[in-house]
Amino acid sequence: MPAIAYLECSRCHARLSADTPQTLCTQCPDQPAGALYVRYDLTHLQGRSAEEVVGNDPTSPWSGMWRYRAVLPDVEPVTLGEGWTPMLRSKRHPGAFLKEEGANPTGSFKARGLALAVTMARHYGLKKLAVPSAGNAAGALAAYAAAADIEAHIFMPRDVPLANYVEAMAYGANVTLVDGVISDCARIVGERKQREGWFDISTLKEPFRVEGKKTMGYELVEQLGWEYPDAVFYPTGGGVGLIGMWKAFEEMEQLGWLKPGKRPRMFAIQSSGCAPVVQAFNDGAAASQMWQNAETAASGLRVPKAYGDYIILDILRASGGMAVAVSDDDIFASLRDWAANEGIFLSPEGAAATAAYDHLLSTGVLDASHRVVLFNTGAGLKYTDVTAAALGLKHPGGA
Amino acid sequence: MPAIAYLECSRCHARLSADTPQTLCTQCPDQPAGALYVRYDLTHLQGRSAEEVVGNDPTSPWSGMWRYRAVLPDVEPVTLGEGWTPMLRSKRHPGAFLKEEGANPTGSFKARGLALAVTMARHYGLKKLAVPSAGNAAGALAAYAAAADIEAHIFMPRDVPLANYVEAMAYGANVTLVDGVISDCARIVGERKQREGWFDISTLKEPFRVEGKKTMGYELVEQLGWEYPDAVFYPTGGGVGLIGMWKAFEEMEQLGWLKPGKRPRMFAIQSSGCAPVVQAFNDGAAASQMWQNAETAASGLRVPKAYGDYIILDILRASGGMAVAVSDDDIFASLRDWAANEGIFLSPEGAAATAAYDHLLSTGVLDASHRVVLFNTGAGLKYTDVTAAALGLKHPGGA
Repeated sequence: MPAIAYLECSRCHARLSADTPQTLCTQCPDQPAGALYVRYDLTHLQGRSAEEVVGNDPTSPWSGMWRYRAVLPDVEPVTLGEGWTPMLRSKRHPGAFLKEEGANPTGSFKARGLALAVTMARHYGLKKLAVPSAGNAAGALAAYAAAADIEAHIFMPRDVPLANYVEAMAYGANVTLVDGVISDCARIVGERKQREGWFDISTLKEPFRVEGKKTMGYELVEQLGWEYPDAVFYPTGGGVGLIGMWKAFEEMEQLGWLKPGKRPRMFAIQSSGCAPVVQAFNDGAAASQMWQNAETAASGLRVPKAYGDYIILDILRASGGMAVAVSDDDIFASLRDWAANEGIFLSPEGAAATAAYDHLLSTGVLDASHRVVLFNTGAGLKYTDVTAAALGLKHPGGA
Repeated sequence: MPAIAYLECSRCHARLSADTPQTLCTQCPDQPAGALYVRYDLTHLQGRSAEEVVGNDPTSPWSGMWRYRAVLPDVEPVTLGEGWTPMLRSKRHPGAFLKEEGANPTGSFKARGLALAVTMARHYGLKKLAVPSAGNAAGALAAYAAAADIEAHIFMPRDVPLANYVEAMAYGANVTLVDGVISDCARIVGERKQREGWFDISTLKEPFRVEGKKTMGYELVEQLGWEYPDAVFYPTGGGVGLIGMWKAFEEMEQLGWLKPGKRPRMFAIQSSGCAPVVQAFNDGAAASQMWQNAETAASGLRVPKAYGDYIILDILRASGGMAVAVSDDDIFASLRDWAANEGIFLSPEGAAATAAYDHLLSTGVLDASHRVVLFNTGAGLKYTDVTAAALGLKHPGGA
């Protein structure tokens, strides 16, 4: 495992030390301050193939996403078995693969980022972590904090799915339900963190959640035989996974594991009830505007403004991708379609990706020959109450 | 992949052909008829090591439980990414490992058995499958049947957890909720199956669910470096996983992959509200009596009489194990304990195993030096409603 060389600002490219906990760039001339990327000295990996470097010993404790430890910080992990999730081939679309992130601990992709962020928090000796969450980050932080014996302080919208509330409480986190959306929760964390002694582990406000999420990029490429797909469909709330995957692609090209110039087109998928990135993309803007009255049953997409919007928009444009909004009706129609015809029970966010894929197939932006990876960011089982309501399924014997 | 040599009755050892779909033994002199085991000709594997035979190519389509295809039927699988679940080391008990079956598709261990049973059903050209279920088998059958384009007819108790109802409906299964427990559901399937043309895919009433479940035995041994643990704690409703693991141990010894004489002690864990195997074990009986007024919030353990009880009891005794009952109070205390202190959100059934482990540590039956595998048979997230009620967590913003 490599030592961290420095942290690099995604805006002004200033270099900060990783010897102490960092949040955002302290050198940025303008606000908002840039998010930080972790940079390693990887010269010792030059000339070594991916197959040689990436661990594949089934009895190794370095399993799951830690098979990529050669490109992750050299710190003892806090792990619950995250990563190395199934890449399922669609039964109807020969080019489509469903990346099943619901198989992660706590049932969502948030496990990857928070496994690494809590690992680093423990390494730095942090004792109190706080986070605003649309739901799934709450469960993941609560679980890894419990495993690491660190306090978790969680702020979620009052109407999060039942599973997000119950898991966070069961893990023993300090949970506050807020009348509002994630940006209201973020404001409260921001106001109270200094007084309370909380470290703000919000997405992109520290450098390691994106670093954990980047393993999705390594993993999808490895699972496709160390080749890029043609396109990636990513349900985009905070968009950290999209940013992390792009960083992974850059690293793999620097390592000589992949040829430059063939990166996938990146598609950010949002709900039409909360589509700030789509609006900014269509407007040709460099950043998004705060979305007013955000409303969608895909709770993970209810993010009125992503901190990393400027990075997301850059990536969409650089990759030749797009930002696409789909309606909640289309989301739940696609959810039902994939359950009944593929045997895969998607989260509403995942069903936004499959709905958008159908849409871009029908409009000719993509065709069946394209190799496409669709992200199901969470287990359908985390949204049982939400999906039951949307599909009109009332449990006749339920409490 | 090997050809099936024959099916062998677990009671009278009669041999039946696997060329057509089989249910129970047709040759047994006494009733109930014996369950059938799949037997292969494995002579071509003799002298080859486990490491050589078992697939470990990360880009192979033969991933998950299909890495053991050398000891599974030679048929094109219906797969949703089942198997190869995390083996988590306890943070507090140095000898204890938690086998996280909640990471399977449909969030439970039932995926393994039904992946293989539906694979074989498709191979045989069966069009309508029926099953009684305490909950999780329903979701798994519904998913694999949807993937295989086969009709699923499901009978569940009216008060199953919400997730079991919603997933089965979303997958498009024909769901009937029954006032009663799984044995009442089984009676209905038995009465109607001939008229309706249903193939009864009930646990042990066809030979392939146990064959899929046996992969848990291969997997736990491989994950421990091709060594047996000292003990296995298995939440026991129908007990098919316990039967399947024992079959796997037998096969691995025949193949020379493991030395005989060192099998783990097998512990069958039940709820004190439904403990027919515990009662039979303590009475020295060869089979269990139908448990009256079965009641436990661990819905998967609400099985008043397991069809394979005679096999389970044989295994417990042959292994030097035990059957142990724990109260629902102890189950939910252990669930909360593991969530808050290990970061692992168990199903009530899984928490029965951890509660029983605590109990046997405290009574000196086991000590901290013993290597023990505790099965969490399902994701805690499948029981959000049940666990919220048991822990007194009312979602303040919930519907």
